[in-house]
Amino acid sequence: MARPRSSSRTNGSAKKVVRYAVIGLGHIAQAAVLPAFRHAKRNSALTALVSGTDKKSRELGRRYGIGRVCSYDDIDELFASGAIDAVYIALPNDQHKEYAIKAARAGLHVLCEKPMAVTARECEAMIRAARKAGVKLMIAYRLHFERANLEAAQLVCSGKLGDGRFFSSEFSMQVRDDNIRLRSAKRGGGALYDIGIYCINAARYCFGEDPVAVWASAARRDDRRFRNVDETIVAAMRFKGERLATFTCSFGAADRSTYTVTGARGSITLDPAYEYAVGLSYEMRIGERKRKKAFGKSDQFAPELLYFSDCVLKGRDPEPSGEEGLADVRIIEGMLRSIESGRWTVLERRPRKRRPTLRQQIRRPAVKREPKLVAAASASQ
Amino acid sequence: MARPRSSSRTNGSAKKVVRYAVIGLGHIAQAAVLPAFRHAKRNSALTALVSGTDKKSRELGRRYGIGRVCSYDDIDELFASGAIDAVYIALPNDQHKEYAIKAARAGLHVLCEKPMAVTARECEAMIRAARKAGVKLMIAYRLHFERANLEAAQLVCSGKLGDGRFFSSEFSMQVRDDNIRLRSAKRGGGALYDIGIYCINAARYCFGEDPVAVWASAARRDDRRFRNVDETIVAAMRFKGERLATFTCSFGAADRSTYTVTGARGSITLDPAYEYAVGLSYEMRIGERKRKKAFGKSDQFAPELLYFSDCVLKGRDPEPSGEEGLADVRIIEGMLRSIESGRWTVLERRPRKRRPTLRQQIRRPAVKREPKLVAAASASQ
Repeated sequence: MARPRSSSRTNGSAKKVVRYAVIGLGHIAQAAVLPAFRHAKRNSALTALVSGTDKKSRELGRRYGIGRVCSYDDIDELFASGAIDAVYIALPNDQHKEYAIKAARAGLHVLCEKPMAVTARECEAMIRAARKAGVKLMIAYRLHFERANLEAAQLVCSGKLGDGRFFSSEFSMQVRDDNIRLRSAKRGGGALYDIGIYCINAARYCFGEDPVAVWASAARRDDRRFRNVDETIVAAMRFKGERLATFTCSFGAADRSTYTVTGARGSITLDPAYEYAVGLSYEMRIGERKRKKAFGKSDQFAPELLYFSDCVLKGRDPEPSGEEGLADVRIIEGMLRSIESGRWTVLERRPRKRRPTLRQQIRRPAVKREPKLVAAASASQ
Repeated sequence: MARPRSSSRTNGSAKKVVRYAVIGLGHIAQAAVLPAFRHAKRNSALTALVSGTDKKSRELGRRYGIGRVCSYDDIDELFASGAIDAVYIALPNDQHKEYAIKAARAGLHVLCEKPMAVTARECEAMIRAARKAGVKLMIAYRLHFERANLEAAQLVCSGKLGDGRFFSSEFSMQVRDDNIRLRSAKRGGGALYDIGIYCINAARYCFGEDPVAVWASAARRDDRRFRNVDETIVAAMRFKGERLATFTCSFGAADRSTYTVTGARGSITLDPAYEYAVGLSYEMRIGERKRKKAFGKSDQFAPELLYFSDCVLKGRDPEPSGEEGLADVRIIEGMLRSIESGRWTVLERRPRKRRPTLRQQIRRPAVKREPKLVAAASASQ
C-alpha cells in the first residue's frame, strides 16, 4: 500500500495544491465537475482523466489541457504514478466502491459522488479502506456548502420557526429512456438513489437528526423506461420528537425540486431546492410575515473541491464524511425493504454529531454556460 | 313522516326561496354560514337558528333579525312547524347523523358540513334517510364551487399537464387547546376529519378518481392538546394508473395550506389552497413557463346555499352528494385502520361518475369582515 498523499503534501512547503484525477466522464463530470476546477485553483488541480470511452478522454483532455488521460485498464498505473493525490469518483453508483477502495489502497484521497454506494455494506468497506490507508474520504453533498440549504437548516435548528414538526418534499424529472439511472435498484438505479437521496439528506440536515424508522411505496406505469426500476416513490420518515417527513421522487413526471419544513411557529419553503444549474431560493413564513430570498446561480462543485483539498492539505476530517454517505444509503436500503414488506423499517440508531452548518458555506461564481457534452447526455428529457 | 318540502315549493308559483334553519352556532356558523345568507338572497333565506347556548341564539337572532330561535329541546317543534324547508347542519361531527336523519324524516332538505359523519355506516344511514324521505342531501364542500380549485382539477383532468402523476399536500394549523377538534377520532375529532379531508378530496377531484388503497401514520408530542387525538398525520393514497398522492395534516404546526399536482408535462401548485378567509391562488408550470393566477377573496359559503337551494327548487340531485361525503369518510376510516395496522388499507371499489367541474363555479363577494363571535372562538391559536 502506498503512503497516503496527505502527509507528504501537508509537510511539504512547496505549492499546496491537491492534484485530482476525475474518474468517469459522464454528464455530471462534464457539466459540473471538470469546469469547477477553474473556480478551485487555489488548492485544487485537474491533473488526469479516466474514461472507458477514448473519444471522451481525448476531447476533454484537449479542452482542459490535461496531458494524463487513460482508460480503466491503465488506472493502476495512473494511481501508482505519483502524478495525482486524489480522485473524484463520478462513476455509475455500483462502481463507487471498487474504485474508491482501489484509490485508497494506492494512497489517494477519495471524493466520491453520492449515493456513496449501493449498499451499506459497500459504504462500510469504503470507510474501512480509507481509514486503513490513512486517506481522506468525502461524499460529494454539494448542498452542504450551499447557502439557501444551509440557511434553511440553520433556521429550523435554531428554533426560529418553533420546534420543527414536519418536512415535505418533491423531486421529479422526466428521465431519458437510455439513462443509466434506469438500471435496477440492485445496481444503484432508480429515483431513490439518484434524487430521493436529496430529500432524505435535506430532512436530516433540517431536523439535525437521523430517522428512527422509514417507509416507502412505489408505482410504475407501463412505460419502457420503467422496465427495471420504479417510476415514482413516496416515502416517509419518523424522527425523534414525533417529527415526520414525507417526500415523493419520480423519474416519470415534470420537474419539481422543492421542500418545506414546517415548525410550530413558521415554515420555510425552498423552490428550487436541489438544483445546481439555476439559482436557489426560499420563502420563510412566520405568522403573516413572508420573507423571500433568492440566491443567484453559483458553482456548487468548486466549493466541494476547495473544502476537500483544504481537508487533505491541513489534515482535517471532511464532513460530509463516509459516515454521512452511509447514513443515507442505510435509509435507502430501509426504504427498499419497506417497499417489499409494506411495513416500516426500523433503523438501528447510529448517532452522528456533525451536521452541516452555515460556517461551511463556500460561494464560487457560476459556470457561465454548460460545456458542450462529449458522448454524454443530461439525465432528463 | 312529513311531506318533503321540495315539491311543495317547486310546484308553488309564489316566491321561490328555500327557508333554512342553521343548526349549531359554533365558529364556522358564525364566521361564515350566517353572513353568507346575505349573498344568497336570490333563493335562500335564513329563517331559524338552533343552539344549545341561549346567549348565542339570542344575540345572533337579534343581529340577523331572526325571530325563530330555539334549543335542541324544541327542535322537533321547529321541524314540524312548516316554517322551514331545509337545515344547514354545522354541529360537531358526531352529531351530523342524528340531526340529518331527524331533519330528513321531518321532510326537510339537508345541507351538512363535512366530514359528513364519523363512520361510513353513519353516512349510509343518512343517505338512506334522505332517499326514503325524498329530500335533497348535500355535503358542504365549498371548494367544489371555488374557481382556483376547479381550474386546477380541470387542468389536470384535461391533460394539459400531461398525465397526472402525483399529488402532494400540506394542511396544518395550531389548534387551540379547548377546541372541539381535539376530541378523539371516535367522536370525529382529529386532523384527518377536519383538515386531512380537504387533501383527500382535492386529490380525488384532481385525479377524477377514487383511491384504491390508502395508508397513514401518526405522531403526537407530549402536549396536553394531544391527549385524545394525534397531532400530525402523514398519509398516502394509490390511484388507478399508478398515480400516488401524499399529504401531511397537523394540528400542532404553523399554517400551511397547499397542494401540488405534478403531471408528465407540468405542475400546478395552489397556495393557499384550502382557505376561505383569504383569496386563493395558483402557479402553473409547464417547462420553463410559469403562470400565476390569484383569485380575490370571495364568499365560499353563499355559493353552496345558492346551488343547494336551486337543487331543492328545481328538483335536481345535488353534487357534492351524500355519496361524495361517504367516499371521503370511507377513506378516513381506511387511514385510521392503517394507522393501527401499519399497512395499506385496500378500499372496496365504488365507482363515482360525477366530479366537480368548472361549470359548478359560483362567485359571490367576500364577507367584508368576520362577524364578532358570540361565545365561540376560531379553531386556531
